[in-house]
Amino acid sequence: MSPLIYILEPFGGSTREHSPALPMLFWDDAAVTRGDGVFESIRIVAGTPVNLDRHLARFIRSATLLGLPAPNPDHWATATREAAEKWASLHGDGEAACTWTMSRGRASRPDIPSTWLVVKPLSEEILRQHAEGVKVLTGPRGYQLTKPAPWSITGAKTLAYAENMAALRYARSRGFDDVIFTDGEQVLEGATSTIITVRGNKIRTPQPGAEVLAGTTQALLFKRALKAGWNCREKPMYYGDLLKADQVWLVSSTRGAVRVTQLDDAPLKSRGDLDTVRELLGR
Amino acid sequence: MSPLIYILEPFGGSTREHSPALPMLFWDDAAVTRGDGVFESIRIVAGTPVNLDRHLARFIRSATLLGLPAPNPDHWATATREAAEKWASLHGDGEAACTWTMSRGRASRPDIPSTWLVVKPLSEEILRQHAEGVKVLTGPRGYQLTKPAPWSITGAKTLAYAENMAALRYARSRGFDDVIFTDGEQVLEGATSTIITVRGNKIRTPQPGAEVLAGTTQALLFKRALKAGWNCREKPMYYGDLLKADQVWLVSSTRGAVRVTQLDDAPLKSRGDLDTVRELLGR
Repeated sequence: MSPLIYILEPFGGSTREHSPALPMLFWDDAAVTRGDGVFESIRIVAGTPVNLDRHLARFIRSATLLGLPAPNPDHWATATREAAEKWASLHGDGEAACTWTMSRGRASRPDIPSTWLVVKPLSEEILRQHAEGVKVLTGPRGYQLTKPAPWSITGAKTLAYAENMAALRYARSRGFDDVIFTDGEQVLEGATSTIITVRGNKIRTPQPGAEVLAGTTQALLFKRALKAGWNCREKPMYYGDLLKADQVWLVSSTRGAVRVTQLDDAPLKSRGDLDTVRELLGR
Repeated sequence: MSPLIYILEPFGGSTREHSPALPMLFWDDAAVTRGDGVFESIRIVAGTPVNLDRHLARFIRSATLLGLPAPNPDHWATATREAAEKWASLHGDGEAACTWTMSRGRASRPDIPSTWLVVKPLSEEILRQHAEGVKVLTGPRGYQLTKPAPWSITGAKTLAYAENMAALRYARSRGFDDVIFTDGEQVLEGATSTIITVRGNKIRTPQPGAEVLAGTTQALLFKRALKAGWNCREKPMYYGDLLKADQVWLVSSTRGAVRVTQLDDAPLKSRGDLDTVRELLGR
C-alpha cells in the first residue's frame, strides 16, 4: 500500500497530492537540515481521523512554541478528512496512520513553512506489538531540566528526535521493543508514547510537564474512562508503581494501547480485564 | 550563485550532481522525519577544502555514535575536492561553505543512509558578522547533563538542531546576533561555534566534553598558534573571563572568526592586534 501524500498551502488554500515515488523536500528545507519543525501522528479508522481536536490543539501549540505560523485548524482538518476518505476508498476501512508536518521551510525562501501530511498503513511491527505486547527497557534521559532558557521549546513535538531514536535502537539491539525514560525512581514517558497503569479501579499516568509530553491518546482515554466510572488521575509515577500495577500500557495515536509484558529483566504479569483500555480507546 | 549538490553513493562508488532546483529528499527520509542524521560544515577557499582531516574525523565519530555506517574518508574527501574545484571554476576563488550530510535514509529502504554534500556561497549575514562582529546573548541550555544513558549520542553533530535554532531566533528578536550557552557562571559554547579568548599571550577555549562540542576550527587555530609561540589551553571558562579578555571570538568553519563586540548588555572593548586570530586561521 503506497502512502498518500498531501501538500498543504502553508497559509490556507489549496491542497495537492504528491507522488510518494518522487522526492519532495529541497536540500535547504529546515526539516532536512536542522530538524526544525513540528509534527503530529493521527490514527485513521474507517476513513475518519480520531481525536482530531486534541491533535490540532497540540500541533498549534508546538508550532507556536517554535515561532512558526499557527496552523489553520479548518484547513488541516479538511485535508486530513479528505485524505482519510481517499485512503478508505482505496484500501478499505482498516486502520492507518496519518502524520502532519510543518517545517520552517526553505532557507532560500524565508518565512514560508513547508506543510504536508502523509497517510500510510500501520507497520507489521506495530501490529505485532499490538498483538503480543512489548518488552521495555528503562533508562535515564541523560539530562535534567533546569531553569528553562527564555527560548525554550520544551513541550513542542519537534522533528528533532534523534535522541529518542537512539534509545529505541539501543533497546532493540538488546532484545527489547521500547524504552521508558526515567529520572531516578520516577518514570516519565515512553520514547514515543505515554505510560498508563491500571490498578483496581484506578487509572494513572505520569503528570505531564516539562519532562512528560501531554498525551493526546491518554487524554482521550481519561475522558472516556471517567465517564465509564474509572478513577483517573495524573500524578508522579515511580518504578515500583509499574511493578505493582495490574496492567501497564504504552499509549500513542497510531499504535493505540500496547501492553508492557516485561520491564527490564522482570516479566510483568497482567491481571484483570485486558480489554478495558483498548475498548475505551476503541481499539 | 546556485548551490552545487553532489549525492554520494552511501557505501562508496559514484557521485552524481543533483539540481538544486529540484526536490531531493523523499517523504520518509530520517533527515526529514526525525532529524536522525549527522552533518559537518567545511570552509572552501580557492577551490580547496580547509581542515579536511578534522572534519572527516568528527563526521566519522558522529556517524558512529548514531550507529550509522562509518563514512569512507577517501570517498568524501574526493567528492569534496571535486565539488570545491568545480565551484572555483564556476565562481572564482572566493570563500564558500560546504555541508556534508548523512541521514539514516528512508524508512521504506532500511539500512541505506542518504548521503550528500552541498557547496554554497557565504551568506550576506556571515559576511556582515565577519566585518562588524557580533552582539551575543548568554543563557542557560535549560538542562544539565547527568549520568549518560547507555544510548547517549552526546558529542555527535546531529541534524536535531531545533533548540539551537530557537535560541538564535530569540537572540535575533532582541537585537543580538548570536548566543553563548552558559551553565551558571560557566560558559560553554556558541549556538553554532566555539568560544575563544585572547589575553596577553594566552589563548583559551572552554574544555570540550559532554556540554561542549570539540571544535574543528578551534583545533586548527590552537595547532597554528602553538607553533607561533602562543600559550594555548583548553580549560573551564567563566563569564568573568570573557569580560577580562583582550578579545573574545566565536570560531566555526564557515564563518571563521567573528569578534564578540557585546556580551548581553555590556559592550566588549577589544585590545591588542585584532588580526592575529584571523591570520592564524588564514582569514
